[in-house]
Amino acid sequence: MKETMANLSSLMDSEVLRAYATYATIVLLKMMMMSFATAFYRNTKQVFFNPEDARAAAKGGDPKKLLKTDEDVERVRRCHLNDIENVVPFVAIGLIYTLTNPDLASALLHFRIFTGSRLLHTVAYLLPLPQPSRGLMWIIGYFATISMAVSILRGVLYL
Amino acid sequence: MKETMANLSSLMDSEVLRAYATYATIVLLKMMMMSFATAFYRNTKQVFFNPEDARAAAKGGDPKKLLKTDEDVERVRRCHLNDIENVVPFVAIGLIYTLTNPDLASALLHFRIFTGSRLLHTVAYLLPLPQPSRGLMWIIGYFATISMAVSILRGVLYL
Amino acid sequence: MKETMANLSSLMDSEVLRAYATYATIVLLKMMMMSFATAFYRNTKQVFFNPEDARAAAKGGDPKKLLKTDEDVERVRRCHLNDIENVVPFVAIGLIYTLTNPDLASALLHFRIFTGSRLLHTVAYLLPLPQPSRGLMWIIGYFATISMAVSILRGVLYL
Repeated sequence: MKETMANLSSLMDSEVLRAYATYATIVLLKMMMMSFATAFYRNTKQVFFNPEDARAAAKGGDPKKLLKTDEDVERVRRCHLNDIENVVPFVAIGLIYTLTNPDLASALLHFRIFTGSRLLHTVAYLLPLPQPSRGLMWIIGYFATISMAVSILRGVLYL
Repeated sequence: MKETMANLSSLMDSEVLRAYATYATIVLLKMMMMSFATAFYRNTKQVFFNPEDARAAAKGGDPKKLLKTDEDVERVRRCHLNDIENVVPFVAIGLIYTLTNPDLASALLHFRIFTGSRLLHTVAYLLPLPQPSRGLMWIIGYFATISMAVSILRGVLYL
Repeated sequence: MKETMANLSSLMDSEVLRAYATYATIVLLKMMMMSFATAFYRNTKQVFFNPEDARAAAKGGDPKKLLKTDEDVERVRRCHLNDIENVVPFVAIGLIYTLTNPDLASALLHFRIFTGSRLLHTVAYLLPLPQPSRGLMWIIGYFATISMAVSILRGVLYL
């Protein structure tokens, strides 16, 4: 038992795995913040999908008036969905890439470019900044993930 | 080869990893059940997005009449999306947290609170129960994941 | 340090882990291609959700005319969401299953059935093929993932 615990623990002596753990956690936290932003906008702007939410918020008024869509809420939700579409593949492919024991400098480069581009993507989406700023940030993060995927397939392909 | 197989296998001697494997699988299965629930409601209520689905279901009737939205189907889909937004970060952050070799009791506490809150969240969403029951279950699970993320960043930060 | 690097690296000597890495990367790349397909359709068909995207595309015309939905774009988006709902659980459950050190032949069978069914699912969704072809491909992939989940729970259950 003790030896195995040591095995599991010693994995985190790897600098690449520590870097992965750090950047993956940061982008996942950023993605989770979008849930909070949606809940915040729904409650401050009083805009809901679920009748039970509208009833709780209406406090004597007509709950049906609160069942509508709002452009600010929809924008946060699109940004959240875009995060799911991009952050989740990064987290999964990034872990597999880390397990192939890449060069630390290459790994850090991929993780930093992806994380930086996604933070700027969110800023560009929520302000919003004029295009192509958001599109550019999306494609930079996208190709950082693709680059790790290519590295995995070149290194460990087993069909 | 044999020695490596032993390495991979011996990872599961770790009680924390076994607990993670168990709870992550349970919440992922719960999330997957929402796909099944959507398919079930679509077919029993005859409500579709895709023209080819409506054609297969119409059986001589007018397929266009089946291309509509239904509040029950939409509720299941919102619950499913909420699972994706919350279960996926738990599964990813929970794995990284597990690899930092946390105390078994702390890990079990996080996994159990998250899993329990998400099961109750689904009940609250689908019945539905009056608010704030669903909101409360959501925020409990949310902070269980945040707590693991903070623990990761405090333990292995490598920027 | 060196010894730990070796530990992390030697994980990929496991054929099951290499097979997992290969198939998980393939289905994640396939899922990511849907982002690209959406961006491609939006730009060739000039259909946008975000006012700033419409403004960048309008080039002197009325950007509001480009804020609409298009059935081809919506079809790609539904296919993408279906991927997220199915590929993400496969990737997560598949990794945990791999860590339980399964028989190589069983693991390959699961990974190949899932990957094949999802590639055909995308073909069936985008052409589209008449039902039940898409439904069949969905359910085959679904039960490949369920089968791995059952195997995990039978092997390492720790509640």
